[in-house]
Amino acid sequence: MELHLENLPKTIELDRDAQGAVFRYVDERLLPGELRIASTRDWREVVDAVKALSVRGAPAIGLAGVAALALWAAYAQTAGECEAVAEQIATARPTAVNLRWAVDRGLAACAAQRAAGDVRAMADALFDLTVEMQAEDEARNRAIGENGAALLKPASRVLTHCNAGSLATYYFGTALGVVYAAAAQGKVARVYADETRPVGQGARLTTWELARVGIPVTLICDNMAASLMAAGQVDAVVVGADRIARNGDVANKIGTYGVAVLAHAHGIPFYVAAPTSTVDSALADGSQIVIEQRDSSEVLACPIPGVDVHNPAFDVTPARYVTRIITEGGAFAPDALFA
Amino acid sequence: MELHLENLPKTIELDRDAQGAVFRYVDERLLPGELRIASTRDWREVVDAVKALSVRGAPAIGLAGVAALALWAAYAQTAGECEAVAEQIATARPTAVNLRWAVDRGLAACAAQRAAGDVRAMADALFDLTVEMQAEDEARNRAIGENGAALLKPASRVLTHCNAGSLATYYFGTALGVVYAAAAQGKVARVYADETRPVGQGARLTTWELARVGIPVTLICDNMAASLMAAGQVDAVVVGADRIARNGDVANKIGTYGVAVLAHAHGIPFYVAAPTSTVDSALADGSQIVIEQRDSSEVLACPIPGVDVHNPAFDVTPARYVTRIITEGGAFAPDALFA
Repeated sequence: MELHLENLPKTIELDRDAQGAVFRYVDERLLPGELRIASTRDWREVVDAVKALSVRGAPAIGLAGVAALALWAAYAQTAGECEAVAEQIATARPTAVNLRWAVDRGLAACAAQRAAGDVRAMADALFDLTVEMQAEDEARNRAIGENGAALLKPASRVLTHCNAGSLATYYFGTALGVVYAAAAQGKVARVYADETRPVGQGARLTTWELARVGIPVTLICDNMAASLMAAGQVDAVVVGADRIARNGDVANKIGTYGVAVLAHAHGIPFYVAAPTSTVDSALADGSQIVIEQRDSSEVLACPIPGVDVHNPAFDVTPARYVTRIITEGGAFAPDALFA
Repeated sequence: MELHLENLPKTIELDRDAQGAVFRYVDERLLPGELRIASTRDWREVVDAVKALSVRGAPAIGLAGVAALALWAAYAQTAGECEAVAEQIATARPTAVNLRWAVDRGLAACAAQRAAGDVRAMADALFDLTVEMQAEDEARNRAIGENGAALLKPASRVLTHCNAGSLATYYFGTALGVVYAAAAQGKVARVYADETRPVGQGARLTTWELARVGIPVTLICDNMAASLMAAGQVDAVVVGADRIARNGDVANKIGTYGVAVLAHAHGIPFYVAAPTSTVDSALADGSQIVIEQRDSSEVLACPIPGVDVHNPAFDVTPARYVTRIITEGGAFAPDALFA
């Protein structure tokens, strides 16, 4: 296996040019068929891209959020709408805490310039913050990778759900960051990628990303994980997270909870890899996490008369099913994360 | 809720006419978009329909098997090829035991006529047997339905995986037979239908069949069952079976095992509804059941370079996760089935 980490895409990037600022992003709805870098100067289009899942993954939508605020400021005439714009951005999707966290960080970073009514200075501050947060994201993901790789055994066969890869972050990924760091140490034999219905982030994104880097990857339907585990073919599960409560309960892509129960039943370690910014210190436990309900057309393209569809985008895995939460600061038992 | 069982389709039917015999079947690949009754006089086309999943479901493919043998006999000039034809039919798909069982029953039913070299008499015997087995199937399914309905509590919310309905049998269904019998007693509040990737028997067939009959049905992706269970929205799981070993281990559609583990973890009863012909008395346990591996294109329509696909069509649920096996003879603890 030859690793080609240089093939990992940068998923999002805020740039500056003579006209102002421009946001570039991989339109992930088109993958794996086409790698198209879309670009926009309109903060509203960033919000739409987040809602449409063209940009997705908790860390990436946080960064897209602060970039959207920076775009707004770059082309705004006055500071007056800042609050309303920030609110529209922060509420584009409800479950991932990183989005609100990033937008709040943006508001704090330009508060002084805003008080002075200097929207050009706000734009500068928000641009600088976004660039700083992009670099932070990569550094954090590399640290998560190292901290997680230390937990994996040689020749590990890792199962993952959804995409918590470079495509879900600025660069490198969280759960897949662990895979990349472990692969660099020669520890990864294969990754099993859950398809992750209905949107197929595993089928379309995780497979594509891993194959580009040269890591052996096998796609399975979500309902095949159990029999793979029973056959002894999974050594560890590594997933990302959208929001973590103080007690270690984890909200992540729908289906994560089922994988956690199955891993527990088969004695397989279940690792959650996420930056500390994913922890929502306001939440005592996962029961208070708002679960986004998405349109039925994601599940059933053509409605069938008389058939209802249930389409929650996330579920909550109780802390007791989580072996370790891996952050940039280390690997913690879930009840020790907030200690 | 008004029940319209008269809307349940007859899935397969062998008929006789002036030319000989004709096999009619619902081409299930076209559902739910189109209800097309295909017909053929060529036994090879029946084998192809079984391989392509136009006709599927363990009881239905058993009946299709004996019907195919009857079609062969109806147009054969001599009895000589009988054995070879029977073998081709019986091996069309490997996992469901009903196919081999039905073909063997066909061979036994025409053995005397075959010994006499009278292929016309063989055709008559096989036609009569098929018609008899069709009626038997419906009677057995209705008995399974009653035996299963007795286990369900009022206002039950039932989760099912794949399609073990009228579309998987001659008429009425096994797992959905339980639902229909229970609904007739006013006991069914709602059915949750697992999508059942990759072929979508739940999304395309179970939803369609239940909606036609007027039973409230909600489609979920396979990976959503766990969070529904955690939310207390599932009172019982009822599934079919393709092969049951002597110790009560159950082979059924891929994903069944995971649902069983999840049901167990949430204290939800897990029922398997199947005719006694599904029991393979030659098998001590499920480890010896051959699992059909199907083409990767079912999972991933367009291959992604460097990405492997794993596509087993079935898995094995150990008896310890099965609350009761419901047959035409009653409801049994799995270890009591063969007692």
